[in-house]
Amino acid sequence: MSRVFVEGAYQTNFGELWECSFKDLLVEAARGALGKAGVSPKQVDAIYVGSMLAEQVNDQGHLGALLSGELNLSCPAVRVEAACASGGLAVRKGFLAVASGIYETVLVVGVEKMTDACIPEVTSGLMGATDEQESLSGFTFVSIYALMAEAYKEKYGLRGKELAAVAVKNHYHASLNPRAHYRKRITVDQVLASRMVCSPLRILDCSGVTDGAAAIVLSRKKTKVEILGGGVATDSLSLSKRKRFYSMSSSQKAMQKALKETGVKRQEIDLAEVHDCFTIAEIMALEDLGFYKEGEGRRAALRKETWLDGKFPVNTSGGLKACGHPVGATGVRQIVEIVSQLQGRAGERQVKNARIGLCHNVGGSGGTAVVQMLAAR
Amino acid sequence: MSRVFVEGAYQTNFGELWECSFKDLLVEAARGALGKAGVSPKQVDAIYVGSMLAEQVNDQGHLGALLSGELNLSCPAVRVEAACASGGLAVRKGFLAVASGIYETVLVVGVEKMTDACIPEVTSGLMGATDEQESLSGFTFVSIYALMAEAYKEKYGLRGKELAAVAVKNHYHASLNPRAHYRKRITVDQVLASRMVCSPLRILDCSGVTDGAAAIVLSRKKTKVEILGGGVATDSLSLSKRKRFYSMSSSQKAMQKALKETGVKRQEIDLAEVHDCFTIAEIMALEDLGFYKEGEGRRAALRKETWLDGKFPVNTSGGLKACGHPVGATGVRQIVEIVSQLQGRAGERQVKNARIGLCHNVGGSGGTAVVQMLAAR
Repeated sequence: MSRVFVEGAYQTNFGELWECSFKDLLVEAARGALGKAGVSPKQVDAIYVGSMLAEQVNDQGHLGALLSGELNLSCPAVRVEAACASGGLAVRKGFLAVASGIYETVLVVGVEKMTDACIPEVTSGLMGATDEQESLSGFTFVSIYALMAEAYKEKYGLRGKELAAVAVKNHYHASLNPRAHYRKRITVDQVLASRMVCSPLRILDCSGVTDGAAAIVLSRKKTKVEILGGGVATDSLSLSKRKRFYSMSSSQKAMQKALKETGVKRQEIDLAEVHDCFTIAEIMALEDLGFYKEGEGRRAALRKETWLDGKFPVNTSGGLKACGHPVGATGVRQIVEIVSQLQGRAGERQVKNARIGLCHNVGGSGGTAVVQMLAAR
Repeated sequence: MSRVFVEGAYQTNFGELWECSFKDLLVEAARGALGKAGVSPKQVDAIYVGSMLAEQVNDQGHLGALLSGELNLSCPAVRVEAACASGGLAVRKGFLAVASGIYETVLVVGVEKMTDACIPEVTSGLMGATDEQESLSGFTFVSIYALMAEAYKEKYGLRGKELAAVAVKNHYHASLNPRAHYRKRITVDQVLASRMVCSPLRILDCSGVTDGAAAIVLSRKKTKVEILGGGVATDSLSLSKRKRFYSMSSSQKAMQKALKETGVKRQEIDLAEVHDCFTIAEIMALEDLGFYKEGEGRRAALRKETWLDGKFPVNTSGGLKACGHPVGATGVRQIVEIVSQLQGRAGERQVKNARIGLCHNVGGSGGTAVVQMLAAR
């Protein structure tokens, strides 16, 4: 396997982008990353596009060829889907293709234009990530993650302010990120006073509906940021087949694979972007990835350990919670954030001496997990 | 690159399968191929699922993890989408992963359960494969291919019976295929008397709406059938950006790449499964792949050259036209047909001395083309 480097990385603005079409976002991200890399479209050997809701929300499929055509290319192009892990998995497939020598230069884009449909349609579309047992029973994602939070609470105890502190931290980080969707700083009291959606999750515990795209260019040409490798694991879509709800075995297994593939030790990792679609998800991720012991992840944000200036900064971008979660874009956007941190170009939210960063992207309620590690060179 | 062999191949019945769910078809094909291969699910290192309409028609996404979970696995699993070329591209991605040594044993499944929605929904869903310029203008796929047929007719001349002969041949082949959807033999007169859908294409020039799935198991373990390699090419989704409508540059380029990658000479190819979503598409494919000169492909079926006993049998399965076209399944189903021909197990439709076979799968109106070659060993 060859070493794989990030030649260029780009994120569009995240937000309610009424002025942009799906295709606009896809092409802006692609051209943005190629521009940052100084790579002409003609040098691209293959395209990977991660997206989840394109057909349902935007009436658009065939996304690989769509982008290839817009760039006037005829190279192999594929759309990768694994629910909210579509972006992370597209990066992983692109990484493996370059690492194994199939292609020299690969363009990976994650994209979602969620505001083109009304919220019930989006909510219903997102349920395609789960087993029909859940969707037909009337579950939505907030109720699935609320169930996880309740299970966690029963097992370890969980206070509202421990959840709230995750949201407060991620909104603070987003306030420093000009590309983020929700840049307003909030307080624990505001979170605890916000409307209950599904107990114990309040509206400010939830990620929103966001438009956006992100892209990277990968090759073997040495740059300042290397993708060291990663791991992918899956689990049953249906919660009813799982042994426990307060952790995700797919995240645990993906992390084990990533540690093995890269040879990185957990304590060498300086910062992480983890999948915080709800505040409870960040807490579970910290434990599943082994950064905190079981039952201890809930204290991390409240103790300020995972804040920008803490001992282990998590979601410096603002995370899914506050940078925004255009579902298929998220896994690529996480990579873009870590790349800018490792390049020392993260501006006001720069983590000092960031050398190794981790990205963790989850599909659905843990049916897919993708972990990837990057290092400064 | 290592050599890659087909360990097992399986096709479900194709048809209006009211008694099966999407998941039933996905799992039947996967278990069928693993059974034929004598491979336990636990030996599978990665899963590739090709599907196009799963979200819109079946409210189901996250298809890789869905299958992984149903097989009680936790391996990497991805859904690949490239419109009607989703299946062929899933095979290609699985092939490359084994050839490059990323994985040892790969399971590839193509699946579509199209009858779970009403026809206008399916028609509208299929338009996701095109550019919005076409879909918003009121085009449907039959009108796009009718436009191609008209362009072909203007360039080279085209008689109704030349189109009809393709349908007659493929229905005849399907009559010999117990897994095919439309097994009724038809005549040129019947085709020419059938209802006009969009001139010059009549209802019997069109593939139908079919449910079905197909799967293969790939590894480096030597078997009787090797995948030699292939090629993928893309083109603009929008017809308005193309130079000509009577041929597909993506098919031409994919074929050139496949010939180069495999070292096979065109005249060594004994039989082919080509993408005949409409009769005109088979005629164009024969020319784009170089089996016939430009303007000559229209004579092939009428002269019986592409029939089972002809000099170059095409679509012995019945093709998309008569075996059926569950869109995401088709590209894998084509491979299954060629595998059974090369194994000498094609029963009544066995091609004598079949040594090298080709599969050609198209997405949309030619936005994606995938060509793959297989050989008997």
